Amino acid sequence: MHHTMIGFDNGLFRELKVISVPVTSLSINRGYGAFEFFEVINGKPFYGERHLDRFDRSLRLLKLAIDFRERLPKIIEEVIRHNQMEHGYIKMFALPHTPRTGEYYQAALYIFPTKMPQFDASLYEQGAKLALKEFSRFLPEAKSTNYLAGQFWSDEATDSRTVDILYHNGTTVQETSRGNIFIVKNGKVITPEKQVLKGITRSVVSDLLKEGQFSYSETEITLEELMQADEVFLASTTKQIMPIVQIDGQTIDNGQPGTITRQIMKEFQRIRENY
Amino acid sequence: MHHTMIGFDNGLFRELKVISVPVTSLSINRGYGAFEFFEVINGKPFYGERHLDRFDRSLRLLKLAIDFRERLPKIIEEVIRHNQMEHGYIKMFALPHTPRTGEYYQAALYIFPTKMPQFDASLYEQGAKLALKEFSRFLPEAKSTNYLAGQFWSDEATDSRTVDILYHNGTTVQETSRGNIFIVKNGKVITPEKQVLKGITRSVVSDLLKEGQFSYSETEITLEELMQADEVFLASTTKQIMPIVQIDGQTIDNGQPGTITRQIMKEFQRIRENY
Repeated sequence: MHHTMIGFDNGLFRELKVISVPVTSLSINRGYGAFEFFEVINGKPFYGERHLDRFDRSLRLLKLAIDFRERLPKIIEEVIRHNQMEHGYIKMFALPHTPRTGEYYQAALYIFPTKMPQFDASLYEQGAKLALKEFSRFLPEAKSTNYLAGQFWSDEATDSRTVDILYHNGTTVQETSRGNIFIVKNGKVITPEKQVLKGITRSVVSDLLKEGQFSYSETEITLEELMQADEVFLASTTKQIMPIVQIDGQTIDNGQPGTITRQIMKEFQRIRENY
Repeated sequence: MHHTMIGFDNGLFRELKVISVPVTSLSINRGYGAFEFFEVINGKPFYGERHLDRFDRSLRLLKLAIDFRERLPKIIEEVIRHNQMEHGYIKMFALPHTPRTGEYYQAALYIFPTKMPQFDASLYEQGAKLALKEFSRFLPEAKSTNYLAGQFWSDEATDSRTVDILYHNGTTVQETSRGNIFIVKNGKVITPEKQVLKGITRSVVSDLLKEGQFSYSETEITLEELMQADEVFLASTTKQIMPIVQIDGQTIDNGQPGTITRQIMKEFQRIRENY
């Protein structure tokens, strides 16, 4: 990546370090904003169209209006070009600075490259851990900037192998703070359908499972089903497909990444390598 | 108030309109920050010390560290002086821009005057309405910038007399999105104790009730007790003491502000007028 990072500042391409938001912005005072985040592979947004579709959905659910919607794919291309990105990650925000006037908030659009820490290879080889918390995100179908709980609880995890927080409602599990959860039981793959952010990696896993003629369903997962699963894995943009072998201190099955998990990991890598 | 507003920008006094936060700030991306808000009466922060105590508590709970803590009362005085404020409101934020390094986030401190819309006098004379929502704020004891749900639902309220959203957990009520709730039943005044932000206006009401030798307790209020109350009122910095006569379309008692509510309103005004 180029040394000086360039971002899109609601109409202008500028050095990222000078792009800022008024301290009086509603986005700060009320934690209100839409967020999108994607990987760039070989200079192209990985599943860019799906991310833009989800960004549209987040904007609609949060009642945010942005300029530049039609030019958005071109603007993203330009951000990639300005930063000479071959591989990396891009964040995109729609932030309202002032109260609503009509039905929608006018939001400013910001797009910029970001660096992500690499996860240790051993997490993929030996599996990672999750911590359980009873919580539900507000308006989970929208990807908002409302991450306080996730950030707070992630900070609490002192074990470097605990990669995320899994939310439940006392009966069923929904999603992690930054990803989607899948379980495998007797060869059947299940992921929750409701009260979750529909992840783009989740959608790719869904495609792979359907193409591979796996038994696959989107339905509720109880806490008991989770703990009794043969395999558990996470799907997220940064973690990709990551096997989970321990949840809240309890070992899942034999404590090793499962067969179907490994197969999906392999297929997902194939897609990334050929993108 | 002076025409050009001046704010404190983590060490410097500057024009408010140029004070800004890096778009890459964690406070934006994760909706993470501590917030404080108080009234200025006769050039003095109204119950300033209590607000500073609560700000300290929010900082501690959210694991935020700021510089300037010892100078904070002086800095607030200076903000008031720079803006020639006799009466008005001040917002204060501690915003982390980068990830934690140790146990605490280093946060930047922002303090600036803000204008608040006046509530219509008829809301105090005839009473206001609330909408009910099942929701609990994360880490309710901390005043954070995590207000997405409250903002979203407040936007939904199309009736101008619906002044706030009251949160419940299916069984008991906790707090409104921006204030504390009190009920009166058979001369007894009750406000919830747990899972609420301890408001400064709430603490003043508590003082008044104790001084006035009212029967007063801080305990759970069920949804049923709420709906069967003789009187309901709100306490908040902007709404002060506001009588509530309708909740989710259901009229409380005879639909008129109650006797004890009016008494507390009067006492509260007396304090404000003599501050």
